[in-house]
Amino acid sequence: MAANNRTADASLESLHRIFTVPEAPDSTLGLIEKELSENLNEFLRTHIAATEKPLAEIEKDFSDAGIPEVPSFVSEHTQFLLNKLVAQSVHTAAPTFIGHMTSALPYFMMPLSKIMIALNQNLVKIETSKAFTPLERQVLGMLHKLIFNQNESFYQQWMHSADHSLGAFCSGGTIANITALWVARNAALQPDGDFTGVGQQGLLRAMKHYGYDDLAILVSERGHYSLKKAADVLGIGRDSLIAIKTDDNNRIDLDELQSTLTDLNHKNIKPFAIIGIAGTTETGNIDPLDQLADIAAEHQCHFHVDAAWGGATLMSNKYRHLLKGIERADSITIDAHKQLYIPMGAGMVIFKNPELMTAIEHHAEYILRKGSKDLGSHTLEGSRSGMAMLLYASMNIISRPGYELLINNSIEKAHYFAQCIEQHPDFELVTCPELCLLTYRYVPENTQQALQQATPEQRDILLELLNDLTQFIQKRQRESGKSFVSRTRITPEKWQRKPTTVFRVVLANPLTTTEILENVLIEQQQLAQQSTISLPEIVKLTEEIIEKRAKNDR
Amino acid sequence: MAANNRTADASLESLHRIFTVPEAPDSTLGLIEKELSENLNEFLRTHIAATEKPLAEIEKDFSDAGIPEVPSFVSEHTQFLLNKLVAQSVHTAAPTFIGHMTSALPYFMMPLSKIMIALNQNLVKIETSKAFTPLERQVLGMLHKLIFNQNESFYQQWMHSADHSLGAFCSGGTIANITALWVARNAALQPDGDFTGVGQQGLLRAMKHYGYDDLAILVSERGHYSLKKAADVLGIGRDSLIAIKTDDNNRIDLDELQSTLTDLNHKNIKPFAIIGIAGTTETGNIDPLDQLADIAAEHQCHFHVDAAWGGATLMSNKYRHLLKGIERADSITIDAHKQLYIPMGAGMVIFKNPELMTAIEHHAEYILRKGSKDLGSHTLEGSRSGMAMLLYASMNIISRPGYELLINNSIEKAHYFAQCIEQHPDFELVTCPELCLLTYRYVPENTQQALQQATPEQRDILLELLNDLTQFIQKRQRESGKSFVSRTRITPEKWQRKPTTVFRVVLANPLTTTEILENVLIEQQQLAQQSTISLPEIVKLTEEIIEKRAKNDR
Repeated sequence: MAANNRTADASLESLHRIFTVPEAPDSTLGLIEKELSENLNEFLRTHIAATEKPLAEIEKDFSDAGIPEVPSFVSEHTQFLLNKLVAQSVHTAAPTFIGHMTSALPYFMMPLSKIMIALNQNLVKIETSKAFTPLERQVLGMLHKLIFNQNESFYQQWMHSADHSLGAFCSGGTIANITALWVARNAALQPDGDFTGVGQQGLLRAMKHYGYDDLAILVSERGHYSLKKAADVLGIGRDSLIAIKTDDNNRIDLDELQSTLTDLNHKNIKPFAIIGIAGTTETGNIDPLDQLADIAAEHQCHFHVDAAWGGATLMSNKYRHLLKGIERADSITIDAHKQLYIPMGAGMVIFKNPELMTAIEHHAEYILRKGSKDLGSHTLEGSRSGMAMLLYASMNIISRPGYELLINNSIEKAHYFAQCIEQHPDFELVTCPELCLLTYRYVPENTQQALQQATPEQRDILLELLNDLTQFIQKRQRESGKSFVSRTRITPEKWQRKPTTVFRVVLANPLTTTEILENVLIEQQQLAQQSTISLPEIVKLTEEIIEKRAKNDR
Repeated sequence: MAANNRTADASLESLHRIFTVPEAPDSTLGLIEKELSENLNEFLRTHIAATEKPLAEIEKDFSDAGIPEVPSFVSEHTQFLLNKLVAQSVHTAAPTFIGHMTSALPYFMMPLSKIMIALNQNLVKIETSKAFTPLERQVLGMLHKLIFNQNESFYQQWMHSADHSLGAFCSGGTIANITALWVARNAALQPDGDFTGVGQQGLLRAMKHYGYDDLAILVSERGHYSLKKAADVLGIGRDSLIAIKTDDNNRIDLDELQSTLTDLNHKNIKPFAIIGIAGTTETGNIDPLDQLADIAAEHQCHFHVDAAWGGATLMSNKYRHLLKGIERADSITIDAHKQLYIPMGAGMVIFKNPELMTAIEHHAEYILRKGSKDLGSHTLEGSRSGMAMLLYASMNIISRPGYELLINNSIEKAHYFAQCIEQHPDFELVTCPELCLLTYRYVPENTQQALQQATPEQRDILLELLNDLTQFIQKRQRESGKSFVSRTRITPEKWQRKPTTVFRVVLANPLTTTEILENVLIEQQQLAQQSTISLPEIVKLTEEIIEKRAKNDR
């Protein structure tokens, strides 16, 4: 079936061929692979359609729920995938795609990934992964050292210890966050006397045993939505993930955190975890981790840091000070598929104390036997691929100073773009970049002035119209396919905490140039003029406000 | 850095090169890729060392927790990976590796995987996945139809509905099982009057509102260990995952299930989920799903079927009757990386009712907005890769009848092997294959006879010694590297439910021949003779028993 001379009937012999006969170099798939190997960027540029096709149109090509009764030729099907799937996928590696946390990938990832997939190891147990297990343990150790910098004997003792784990490699930040909070919950409600622990006996008995009326997790209102999911899954409930308001720099308000903790204490509610954010998803800001560590220690809470985005900043000697205090965390989430430039599906949770993960340890009869070094006894997931190999290779090939250059470059590019926005009369920088994220919006110069002079009612109307306009521009820009920024809603102090729609930009792709950034602003300004409702109304109201003010001034 | 003329210092310019300059075809990595493309089986055979190196030795190569301060040449590092990692990995695709649920993969998976990785889509949202989103929804629809066979209008209505989901693609069966039970828990403790649901308010309030004293999940004692993890994570507690004993075919005992349900009812404990197993991990047996569906309906429980292994059997018109009743399940787990021959990291959970997943729906400001078709609003994981593409391609290229041939062949090969074991005087078949799994052990012919004649004390000693011998043979066989079977402990009726160590064989690799199977037995018989403790003691005790019996008979 793999070769072109396959007949359409599926015999066992022809099926054997697909497991033993490789794609010929001159087959469609072989040629694509060659093209992809020779110039990936060109492959993506030429095969992904630039302009957007309506989703409803695309869905028509994926509408049959029947599994085919007749086999397809590999080449024919590949052609279908090229025309219908690849062409309508998203060029996430494009230097102009600066709206989400994606980037171009190092070239060596493609052939290395192929080796990883060909080996098809299963990291749940030694028997199906062998050397991949010590490799993954080393990778976790490397990240642990990057964060906590323990001495060599620490890693000698713990990195390969069968009964311990410095963390877990997983599919992404969400699983990492859930794992961290699972460990925190089980440690807070651990076995005690006759009580065999929340993991064994469940939340209801745990609460009875410890005499708490409820549990709580605290995080700023900029916390990633996965934390709500975690609170739901873990049986705590989304309401018990308490969102603490932020200051104007999107950092957790420590006074409110303290008063909330006091309040919980009075209500006999146990706050078992405080979460600091190192790089909020929407604005890239970092909580005051050192002070959070103090507060967590004072209240005997597990201190988790969600550094899914910002953790990689630790690679930069120049900027790692931004995360000061992270070395006091009990657990940390880092995504390798973000600023460590690994393909999608590589998250990690790292624990300071190698004993902590025993709170979720589990065993089975056919694998994960006690004393085995099977990684599966300390992971939320079961079967897992050998993704850790890609991070391992990348840390060796790029090296720490190489990553530092990439990180520094991203941050400094964001500062440059922020400057462009601030200097432009018709744009408003809404959040300054601390890492390489920033938010802004298009506000005509006159309107910026009018907003200062408007009555509260007029201002509210203007802000509402500006939200519409931002959404309009963002959608148009995406559809036109030249460049892409995302959008979100935040509540800036400056605008009385009203939900404000903003453009959101993430500058992690090393191939994004300053010229591209300048063009994004030019394009957005042009797109704004195409708005037939919001912009005219903004202009009209702006003129009214300014005229009235001028009249009053006369 | 990608090219061989790279200098060792990491400048930003040299870093740019790793994102823009591909591996040259004559580079080490380029050559490996070529070798791998031309003959994967040969690559694996020649690069993976056959005999086992002690783990402690391997660990020495992965013992440094420091992230390198100096970059490595891609070619040098690749050579290191070949020598130290690939050489010491496990040849999971070998036709002689019949101990775990791995297999050779179809050749077209390698180039297709490379395309998938190069595209680096993120399926959490349309904005980073576009056509991959309808594709994944179609794949879920295809599996839904394979199981539930609803009519065309059903799929027209639901497959691409923004507010619904027929299931979730995920990293593996564990996440699938957790997702199913998460949905079941939230549906059982759904919003009601002032109570906003367990997801929102947590288990404690949910139990108060509904007035239950506890919750329970029921599954046979052969349930996969991930279910215990699920009970732990979800706050139910491992104790509340009630293991129902099995009959001699490893199928759940329905009488005990019924009496347990009655008992729970009396204790005011809510059994919110009953789980049927379609292919137990250890023995491959299938629970009586139709009867379980009746019981679940009677007790208003969510009926989940863990078909991580056996689900693919539905592709076979000849054998799908083995899973009769699965079409009455509320949710089903299927792993594509098992018998659908997809690389590691492809699990699925499918829900019969498209409304059910709303029990875990979630939203965020910057993505997953209400009304969007973002898949992330119904998944436990966040960012996810485009793995669904590989299953999509495979279902098209292999087709349903192709999969049927593979499934039939596996099952029939297991029957053949079972026959070999039964006909061999020195082996005992412990569990018969229902799918392509079976368990057995080496018991010399005389000892089989002695076991019938022994006193209970003698029998216990013999069984203990046989356990040691089985373990010895299995370890030796693994170490010698010619072939691999796994081992587990089960409790056969025949041996008074005493823990019995057995060889476990999984015959899903289409390249495994009957000759290989015959050789496995020959090798095991030879390895048994190398046992210097267990076997001599077994022989001695066997002789004593037989002589004594002979004496008594005289």
